[in-house]
Amino acid sequence: MSNDERANRVPTSDDVALLAGVSRSAVSRTFTAGASVAPATREKVISAAKTLGYRVNFLARGLSQQRTNLVALIVSDMDNSLRARTVDHLARGLATLGFRPLLLPTEPGEDVGYLIDMMLNYNVNGTIVTSDTPPAEIAQECAAYGVPLVLINKPEVGTHVSNVSIDTATAGRLAAEELARVGCKRIAIASQRRASHTIAQRKAAFIATARSLGLDIVGDFQGSVQNYGGGAEAAEAFIASCIEVDGVYCVNDFMALGFLDQLRRLSDLRVPEDIKLVACDDIAEAAWQSYDITSIRQDPKAVADAAIAALSKRIEESEAAQPHVIIPVTLIRRRTTGASDPI
Amino acid sequence: MSNDERANRVPTSDDVALLAGVSRSAVSRTFTAGASVAPATREKVISAAKTLGYRVNFLARGLSQQRTNLVALIVSDMDNSLRARTVDHLARGLATLGFRPLLLPTEPGEDVGYLIDMMLNYNVNGTIVTSDTPPAEIAQECAAYGVPLVLINKPEVGTHVSNVSIDTATAGRLAAEELARVGCKRIAIASQRRASHTIAQRKAAFIATARSLGLDIVGDFQGSVQNYGGGAEAAEAFIASCIEVDGVYCVNDFMALGFLDQLRRLSDLRVPEDIKLVACDDIAEAAWQSYDITSIRQDPKAVADAAIAALSKRIEESEAAQPHVIIPVTLIRRRTTGASDPI
Repeated sequence: MSNDERANRVPTSDDVALLAGVSRSAVSRTFTAGASVAPATREKVISAAKTLGYRVNFLARGLSQQRTNLVALIVSDMDNSLRARTVDHLARGLATLGFRPLLLPTEPGEDVGYLIDMMLNYNVNGTIVTSDTPPAEIAQECAAYGVPLVLINKPEVGTHVSNVSIDTATAGRLAAEELARVGCKRIAIASQRRASHTIAQRKAAFIATARSLGLDIVGDFQGSVQNYGGGAEAAEAFIASCIEVDGVYCVNDFMALGFLDQLRRLSDLRVPEDIKLVACDDIAEAAWQSYDITSIRQDPKAVADAAIAALSKRIEESEAAQPHVIIPVTLIRRRTTGASDPI
Repeated sequence: MSNDERANRVPTSDDVALLAGVSRSAVSRTFTAGASVAPATREKVISAAKTLGYRVNFLARGLSQQRTNLVALIVSDMDNSLRARTVDHLARGLATLGFRPLLLPTEPGEDVGYLIDMMLNYNVNGTIVTSDTPPAEIAQECAAYGVPLVLINKPEVGTHVSNVSIDTATAGRLAAEELARVGCKRIAIASQRRASHTIAQRKAAFIATARSLGLDIVGDFQGSVQNYGGGAEAAEAFIASCIEVDGVYCVNDFMALGFLDQLRRLSDLRVPEDIKLVACDDIAEAAWQSYDITSIRQDPKAVADAAIAALSKRIEESEAAQPHVIIPVTLIRRRTTGASDPI
C-alpha cells in the first residue's frame, strides 16, 4: 500500500511528529482515547495535524482501534427498483453483522471527491460501490488508506478490490436462446448509449449467442439513459426506422417498461403476437400485468449477501485473496414470449 | 430531558464515578481523546462503565464534542419509488451540509431495539424517521439521550420532536373535488387495512369533502399492504362485490397501479370511460403510459429539504420551538379522469 500512499502524499504520523517536534508516540497518544499526554504536547500535535491536513480518520484512530464499523454504500439510480432493493438488502445485512451503512448517493459523472472525503473523514472500515461511477479513483483512494472495497457489477480494478457480479454471460445467452426457442429470426436490440459495465457485457453475450443460433440482429436502438424514459426513446427510434423484426432484446427491464408502453402508444405492433420481447433483471415491475415481461432474474439479496461476505473477509484478513464472485441468473418466462397469462 | 432520562434509567457518568470510586472528572477524562488520565484510574472507569452498561455514545463523547455528524435515516418500504426517492434526497441533502446519513431499514412491526442501539452506540447527532414504524419508542429514547428527531408523515409525539408532513387535508379534498368535477356520483375507496398515518388522514379528508359535495361513498375495498399487490387485492374485492360505481379513490399511487391492472384483467370495466380514478403521491409510475393516473403530487425533495432544515435547526439550537412543517400538494390531471393523453 505504501506505493499508493506515497503517490497520494498522505501525511503520516511521522510527518506530524516531525512538524510538532514531538515523539511519534506522543502523536499516537494524542489521538487515542484514554491515553495520557501532556496538554502542551497535545496542542502541538493537533496544530501540526491541521497544518498537514492529516486525515480525520487518523485523528479518530482511537475509535478506529475499537472499529467504527461504518461501511460506505456508494449508490446511484435509486429510482431503479432493483437498485433500491439491493441497497435495502445491503443495509439490513450489514446491520445484522454490526456494521453501520453510510449511504452516499452519487450520479454517473459526478465528482467523487466528496465521497472520498466522507469515507476517509469518518474512517469507514469498508466501502461497497453499486453506482455506475467509474470506481478507479475511489479504488485508488481506498487502497491508499487501506479501506477494503467491494464493487458490485463493475469492471475489475485490481487484486486489492473484490468484485461481485451477476453472470452476464449466461444472462445474455439465456435471452438469445429464449428468442430462438419461440421462433424469432430478425432481432432488434434496445439498449443505452453509454452502457454500464454489466449491460455492455450482457449485450455482447446476447449478440454472440444470437449469431451462433442464426438469428439476424438488424438494429440496435438506443436511449440516452437506462430507465423508463430511455426505453421509450429506444422504441421511438425503432418505430421510426420502419425495420421489421419479430424479436426484441431489451438490455434491462426498466427500459423494457418504457419500450413496451411507447410501442403500444405509437404503433399497432402487438407483443407477443407480432414481436416477442426478452429483457433482464426481473425487477418487480416486470411481473406487473401491464407488462408481464420475460426476463433474466438476478437476485438482489444474493448479490448483497455476497458483497457483504466479501467485504467482511477483507476486513477480517486484509491480505486475503479476493475472488470475483459470480451470482447465477435464471430465465423467467412471461407473456412477452408467449407464456400464458397466470390467473 | 432528565425526567425521561430517569424514566429510562440511563446510567450517568456520576454512576460510573461512584462505582469506580473515582472523580467525575476522571470519568470524563477517560472518555475524552487526548485528555490525561492515569492508566489504573482509566481501567477502573472502563470496567465500571461496562458493568453499568454505560452507553457507547458516552464512551465516544470525545468524538461527539467534535460532532460525529452522523444522522440516522430510519426507513421502510424502499420498494415504493416515492420512499426510495425521498431517501435519495435526504442522503444527498445531508451530505451537502456535511452530515453523514446512516441508513437503517426497518419494517412495520419490527423490533426497533437494534435501531435505537445503532443510533446511540454511534452517537448520531440526529435522526429522521420515514418508516411507518410507530415512532413512540424511538422518540422516547431520542429524548432521553438528547438526540434531535424529525418525523416525516407521522403523528406528532411531543414538542421535543419535529414533524414534516404533506398537506393531507388538501390531498384528500383535491381528490374528491376532481371526481366531482368529472361527474362522479357513486364512489368506491381502495385503501389498506392498517392504514399508515398520512393515508388515514388523506382518506378522512377525502370522505369529508366527498360527502359535502353530495358524492355517495358506497364501499371501501381494502388490501393487506399499501403497494401494487394490495391494490390488486382491493380490486378483486371491489369486483367480487358487484357494486356499481363511477369513481374510485385510491389512497396511494402504488396501490392504484395494482388496482388498475387487476381491474383490466378481471373485469370489462374501462378507465376512464366507465370508472374515473384518482390516487395520491404522483410517483413516477403514475405517469407511465399503461397507467397515466390522475394523482395528488407531493414533492419528495421538498419533504426531504424541510426535514433536513428542521433537523439542522434542532441540532444548532436544541431548545428551539419545533413547528409542524406542512408541505403543499397539487392535483395532476391525467387519463384516469379523462385528461387527454399527452403526445
